[in-house]
Amino acid sequence: MRLVIVGGVAAGTKAASRARRVDSLMEITVYQEEPEPSISECGLPYLLSGMVEGRDRLVARTPEKFAEQDIEVRVRHRVEKIYPGTRKLSVRDLATNETFEDSYDRLVVATGAGAVMPPIPGADLDGIFGLRFLTDADEVLDYIRDHSPGKAVVVGGGYIGLEVAENLCRIGMKVALVEGADRVALAYGPEVSEKVEAELERNGVDIFTGEKVERFVGDGHIRAVKFGDEEIEADLVIFGVGVKPSIELARDAGVEIGATGAIRVDRHMKTNVPDVWAAGDCVETTNLVSGGPAWVPLGDTANQMGRVAGTNAAAGDDVLEFPGVLGTGIFKVYDLGVGKTGLSEKEAEAAGYETVSAGVEARDRAGYYPGAGKVFLKLIADADTGRLLGAESAGSGADKLVDICATALWGRFSYLDLVNIDLAYSPPFGPALSPVIQAATILSGQFDRAREGTRVTE
Amino acid sequence: MRLVIVGGVAAGTKAASRARRVDSLMEITVYQEEPEPSISECGLPYLLSGMVEGRDRLVARTPEKFAEQDIEVRVRHRVEKIYPGTRKLSVRDLATNETFEDSYDRLVVATGAGAVMPPIPGADLDGIFGLRFLTDADEVLDYIRDHSPGKAVVVGGGYIGLEVAENLCRIGMKVALVEGADRVALAYGPEVSEKVEAELERNGVDIFTGEKVERFVGDGHIRAVKFGDEEIEADLVIFGVGVKPSIELARDAGVEIGATGAIRVDRHMKTNVPDVWAAGDCVETTNLVSGGPAWVPLGDTANQMGRVAGTNAAAGDDVLEFPGVLGTGIFKVYDLGVGKTGLSEKEAEAAGYETVSAGVEARDRAGYYPGAGKVFLKLIADADTGRLLGAESAGSGADKLVDICATALWGRFSYLDLVNIDLAYSPPFGPALSPVIQAATILSGQFDRAREGTRVTE
Repeated sequence: MRLVIVGGVAAGTKAASRARRVDSLMEITVYQEEPEPSISECGLPYLLSGMVEGRDRLVARTPEKFAEQDIEVRVRHRVEKIYPGTRKLSVRDLATNETFEDSYDRLVVATGAGAVMPPIPGADLDGIFGLRFLTDADEVLDYIRDHSPGKAVVVGGGYIGLEVAENLCRIGMKVALVEGADRVALAYGPEVSEKVEAELERNGVDIFTGEKVERFVGDGHIRAVKFGDEEIEADLVIFGVGVKPSIELARDAGVEIGATGAIRVDRHMKTNVPDVWAAGDCVETTNLVSGGPAWVPLGDTANQMGRVAGTNAAAGDDVLEFPGVLGTGIFKVYDLGVGKTGLSEKEAEAAGYETVSAGVEARDRAGYYPGAGKVFLKLIADADTGRLLGAESAGSGADKLVDICATALWGRFSYLDLVNIDLAYSPPFGPALSPVIQAATILSGQFDRAREGTRVTE
Repeated sequence: MRLVIVGGVAAGTKAASRARRVDSLMEITVYQEEPEPSISECGLPYLLSGMVEGRDRLVARTPEKFAEQDIEVRVRHRVEKIYPGTRKLSVRDLATNETFEDSYDRLVVATGAGAVMPPIPGADLDGIFGLRFLTDADEVLDYIRDHSPGKAVVVGGGYIGLEVAENLCRIGMKVALVEGADRVALAYGPEVSEKVEAELERNGVDIFTGEKVERFVGDGHIRAVKFGDEEIEADLVIFGVGVKPSIELARDAGVEIGATGAIRVDRHMKTNVPDVWAAGDCVETTNLVSGGPAWVPLGDTANQMGRVAGTNAAAGDDVLEFPGVLGTGIFKVYDLGVGKTGLSEKEAEAAGYETVSAGVEARDRAGYYPGAGKVFLKLIADADTGRLLGAESAGSGADKLVDICATALWGRFSYLDLVNIDLAYSPPFGPALSPVIQAATILSGQFDRAREGTRVTE
């Protein structure tokens, strides 16, 4: 029995390890285009500043380590075609540029996602980079070493752009961030976007919102970035405008693609093609709040999906299920943690909900306990049923509040379930009533008033 | 309509404020024995070291502040008798030592809990204190100022004793902690107790477990503490051996007392006596995991109960419910956060469950991200059904892990619900898979093996 896994970052390597635990005898081969497997891509922005010390720290396991588990990892190999009828593969060895044929009994597609590079004039100038793979970071670091750029422009105000802006600023560059929308961190409400912009500006990052880059100016090398009435100098540009699922290989093999543009799988991570599973950033799943399809390319989810796909592929059976995601995410800019789970108000309204929300500005410990920091939390609920739809938080301890709310969403809690919830309190760890309880209590008052309003008009 | 509240710390003052919001006209009087209302008793240990700067920081609101809400707070007044038949009260003014009669239409009993002082020979020597009320802390601080004690013994290794030991050590005293059981932090499993002992010892606290204090030695003033073969010098002793509910007043008025020794109430915080509600540390509630009665005297729970009792008493109706508690708690010794929710293994076994558990030693951020701390987490589940019964954690970010698990227990999750839960990940905030997910995945493997074992023997 031969299992082949296409892609060896998070989902692919997790699937391989799990498959080995399920079946100690099956042949397992992982093909990985990049020079290393098992890369912690979430750490790339921190590599730029040296906060993560050395690229090797981002390689969780080498091919040699996988070999100890009797898993063959072939790096710098690209699977170019899948023939599901005959269960054959065409593989290119990128070192020799030669192709060869391989075969599988079972296949896991974990081809991940690639950086989106918008077609902006001048984007082929030297000094303009995406930041998706470890090899991208290598190129940026080589460029910084060789050219000592002093002025950087980051294109895109999503979490990757924000993290990159911080990390370039930390090594002394003058950094400008350009975002097409009217605010950064668009997945969040405006209160959070404001805090993120303020934290970056306080630390010296210039932010230009509502501005689309028109043109990169230069002569061989990047020299300036043009948008609106501005032309700002730059000798380094990094795109942080997002990623798209890498699905061409699977689609060409007849694998169904979902509404989000990512591979459609069932709860067992099976595709529509027999003996082909898929996992990770190339896969579409369900948003458990809205019930709709979701594509959320994140490392933790990729690991969880890889575990399910690897187990089921090894067993050749529907052993484990992956139920879906909440859209939980978190990032940090300087000292500000920013996270969310479920739907933002905008997302909830787009999904057809009428929403109520309550925001609190709270402290992360008892008021009298020294060193208290501030944290913002907003809860969003369905105005009809009271069901929680989402939460977002920014500030000290935002990660805790988001994880409490994610767990509440996972359990399909109503706001009422949070009013009396028994969370952990002592002065060093929070106010006597958690911001989650405070916000739920405010929501409770809003629902009460809404009901009284209804009663009066009846 | 006149509402009287007996007790003005957390539950009593919260009940008063809520009652005022429900009914803007009713008369509200709070009787409080101590010289101040609205005291943050959880902060008392930190007052001893000066980490909390000044006693007034622990008084959340003064009687004058309550007066602005038209709530009368009469401090240094003790309600000595309740006559439920006539709805009268006998009240002693502790300043004049005179008694007078008052009356109520509705009554909230929030008499709290008092320190347990075991009857040990010599306990009447000068320099031996409990630490329950702000006035206790005043006495200790006066004593420290007047006598400059250099050697302290803390009796009891529960969370108050542990916090007191740290805070006395922080101001330069040589501190010994004596605990009768074979380890401190008995509400936890032995792994956590060990970490707590190690953290205190690392910081210079001497710990004697399995030792019961036999005698306090001294001549007017405390000079030494005798236990087992030891007699250790001490010029200050603080009891941290726990509290008991103050229920005599209510019991004498015919209020039913529950199995735990605290006041029995229904889900609306009503006692068996008409027009009498009760809330806070004097009240018994339900442990939502075991379904049994629980007495958990904690500030956050008291606030939540006070909200329910105050609302219902003001409305004269069953408007709000307090469902019960999980037994969630947390404390800190030096840099070690220690928390739990639900049942420990010992508690679960006492409640009749057969348990399985999984412990993980994890990091609080990605391994490659600088400054990672360590954290231990143990999940405990029902071996029959897989339902989560409890969790305990110690280390960096223990508060977050405990709150995630408390929310999971609140939603009656099984271990399986946590394997794929969508928590917030990015490198500064945790490993790619949260320790909660790691532990649940280990449990999952244990259940799988148990099932296979069953299959084989069938």
